[in-house]
Amino acid sequence: MAGTKERLVVIGGDAAGMSAASQARRLKGPDELEIVAFERSRFTSYSACGIPYWVGGDVAGRDELIARTPDEHRARAIDLRTRTEVLELDTARQRVRARDLESGDEGWTGYDKLVIATGARPVRPPLPGIDAPGVHGVQNLADGEALIASLDAARGRRAVVVGAGYIGVEMAEALVNRGFGVTVLNRGEQPMSTLDPDMGALVHGAMNGMGVTTVGGAEVTKVLTGEDGRVSAVATEDGTYPADVVVLGIGVTPETELARGAGLPLGASGGLLTDLAMRVRGHENVWAGGDCVEVLDLVSGTLRHVPLGTHANKHGQVIGSGVGGGYATFPGVVGTAVSKVCDLEIARTGLREKDARAVGLRYVTATIESTSRAGYYPGAAPMTVKMLAERRTGRLLGVQIVGREGAGKRVDVAAVALTARMTVEQMTALDLGYAPPFSPVWDPVLVAARKATAAVAKAGY
Amino acid sequence: MAGTKERLVVIGGDAAGMSAASQARRLKGPDELEIVAFERSRFTSYSACGIPYWVGGDVAGRDELIARTPDEHRARAIDLRTRTEVLELDTARQRVRARDLESGDEGWTGYDKLVIATGARPVRPPLPGIDAPGVHGVQNLADGEALIASLDAARGRRAVVVGAGYIGVEMAEALVNRGFGVTVLNRGEQPMSTLDPDMGALVHGAMNGMGVTTVGGAEVTKVLTGEDGRVSAVATEDGTYPADVVVLGIGVTPETELARGAGLPLGASGGLLTDLAMRVRGHENVWAGGDCVEVLDLVSGTLRHVPLGTHANKHGQVIGSGVGGGYATFPGVVGTAVSKVCDLEIARTGLREKDARAVGLRYVTATIESTSRAGYYPGAAPMTVKMLAERRTGRLLGVQIVGREGAGKRVDVAAVALTARMTVEQMTALDLGYAPPFSPVWDPVLVAARKATAAVAKAGY
Repeated sequence: MAGTKERLVVIGGDAAGMSAASQARRLKGPDELEIVAFERSRFTSYSACGIPYWVGGDVAGRDELIARTPDEHRARAIDLRTRTEVLELDTARQRVRARDLESGDEGWTGYDKLVIATGARPVRPPLPGIDAPGVHGVQNLADGEALIASLDAARGRRAVVVGAGYIGVEMAEALVNRGFGVTVLNRGEQPMSTLDPDMGALVHGAMNGMGVTTVGGAEVTKVLTGEDGRVSAVATEDGTYPADVVVLGIGVTPETELARGAGLPLGASGGLLTDLAMRVRGHENVWAGGDCVEVLDLVSGTLRHVPLGTHANKHGQVIGSGVGGGYATFPGVVGTAVSKVCDLEIARTGLREKDARAVGLRYVTATIESTSRAGYYPGAAPMTVKMLAERRTGRLLGVQIVGREGAGKRVDVAAVALTARMTVEQMTALDLGYAPPFSPVWDPVLVAARKATAAVAKAGY
Repeated sequence: MAGTKERLVVIGGDAAGMSAASQARRLKGPDELEIVAFERSRFTSYSACGIPYWVGGDVAGRDELIARTPDEHRARAIDLRTRTEVLELDTARQRVRARDLESGDEGWTGYDKLVIATGARPVRPPLPGIDAPGVHGVQNLADGEALIASLDAARGRRAVVVGAGYIGVEMAEALVNRGFGVTVLNRGEQPMSTLDPDMGALVHGAMNGMGVTTVGGAEVTKVLTGEDGRVSAVATEDGTYPADVVVLGIGVTPETELARGAGLPLGASGGLLTDLAMRVRGHENVWAGGDCVEVLDLVSGTLRHVPLGTHANKHGQVIGSGVGGGYATFPGVVGTAVSKVCDLEIARTGLREKDARAVGLRYVTATIESTSRAGYYPGAAPMTVKMLAERRTGRLLGVQIVGREGAGKRVDVAAVALTARMTVEQMTALDLGYAPPFSPVWDPVLVAARKATAAVAKAGY
């Protein structure tokens, strides 16, 4: 081996890790850079976001969700070791200890550069019965396989979904599509706590419209099991909900035990802290990205944990560029998310009212009703747009949209405007695409910007 | 009449004029401001952009396209005089001479403030036969009514559309929907010269796919008529195309004869020149907006004539604020336009290659293929995105998109980025909405931005 050849070790074979490995490989050939990647499961580079659609039957099978298989990575000169878990990280001696989960063999592997992409794990509150058969998270492909097997094996057709965020709402629809009667238990009063409650209420109505029972203010206390040990019901302080299968959609937490053990810096939500080049703070040769890191929220100036595949891919790209001797940065997020339940599109970007309050920002709000197309054009569907703007400055702080076809991706306009720190008044002049099949002559986002501009003026100095 | 009461005269009762009148009325009541509006036709505040859909049958009838009728305006204390044409403008004495087209009565009306919103008129080249019955423009509701009557009266089912811009393409589809065999004669080689030819070629294919015959490089020389004087064919230098009806879609020109007669400043394309508050240059009490003005192109720094309803409405809002004692400006456009032909969505913003060259900008281009949704999600449709970036600086210069459902409005992301003068590298980090039903994990616009970033780097200094 030539003295100049370096070894990159990647921990985690999904979006961030394998994007980093692939980008590094593009920039440096095997003669310059050896790449070893460890992955606990049998899968690499898959779309966890697609699992609800696989469960619901919109996606034919598991393999559809896999962007690149282990063998495809290996064909690109990446030494990918699946079913291998990294147990210990020793940054002082630049090595990791890994175990082959099939053979049980363990050993240390040294590195010159390290990428930590260990992802996140579903929150599983320590409740009685939470680990019973029939209770499922939906974080990875194995979870998806287990859930589908469980649905097929279920004695009845009653499902309980715990949590009403994106995953909970998408899983509720998936389970309805599979013929289950679905009850969603939600800690808050409205589903989609990623929206303000007034906008979440619109989602609530749509969920009930598709036959889902929603229970707000529901704190789960216990998972009950039958004689066979399998889940039979979910109990809250106020009631008991029979269940042949339970899906947990109560969020995820960064998978950073390994990093914590190595003394790497973690933030308030347990995610790794990095610099703009995605290097772990204080460690020039260690990068981290994806669902195991915290990112800068460009609107509030705070660090947040935002586990989304689209960020993980960007991180991987930035990390791979850095590892490979190139240059790229990840400036941060503005908090954009879109989702869909039946034909209802749900989108948000920037801050909710409570986010703004939490960071000391004073704001005004404006909520408008408009349509996706010119009112006279066939298929024009209603949409509600809520906009937050900072008092005095009028700077855009956030947008939430709930509507039908054509509503969700309109949030991108606001995402770019947030990135550019535009005021809502500047937004009123935006030259957005107009034609009757695409928009009313005033795009709904512009209508909201006009109303928000008036609200800023009215609130005064 | 109190000494402080002013009179506003508005010339033109469509989007810009009546938006201005309405906004001025919101800010000042009839005791402070008298508003007199002159409109040549019987209609006010209608959507000319909707005419193709009315002709094609997607919109039930004419009245669907009318946002506010003359009587609705009158109920808001606007003295609206329809079927009344302004013949002369005398800015020195602050008065206009108007004729009631029904009675023939003429007279002068004085003003304190004036709004010129005379719109645009379809280009009608001075060719033999161009004024024959059966040859139609589609600029206003009367044109639409005349065309529909002409289609109903046509002896055969052959239509020729002259021009393959937005109007031409939309009218071709409308005529197909009405059961006509359609030939589109286009001066350029590709339709949609608002796109670069490589992107226009994608539209060409789609038009042929819906059974429209397209003839490129076709310079119309003559309109032929039958024994009854009605159109029978259109001749070019290379051929003759039988036609029972002809639609002219070769663009519009600012309707500024009145302004020219009064010595008001006009630009290179014949549109009125205004300041940022939409006041006619050199005239503190005269505003102009809509299809009769030139606007600043924020990307190229040049003045352009961009006749679009969405701009006209914004102009009206700004003018009405100024007239009413408020404050608003129209900073300019970035050149966004969207259109649709069958299920093909066509969008552009910013500069085409030839626009960039014309203003001395050096650029690189990147073209990518992607999909509207995650590849595995049902309904994922292909789309092509072309991006132009300035050499050296990497500043975004323009984006063109051709694709199916979900393609068109993606151009808005680029429209905002152009307004904010972002570089394509900055765009690669944009936090756009991602979920499988809405986008691949890398939105097509981001994929294009990555490729354009690489192209900028490769082109070097």
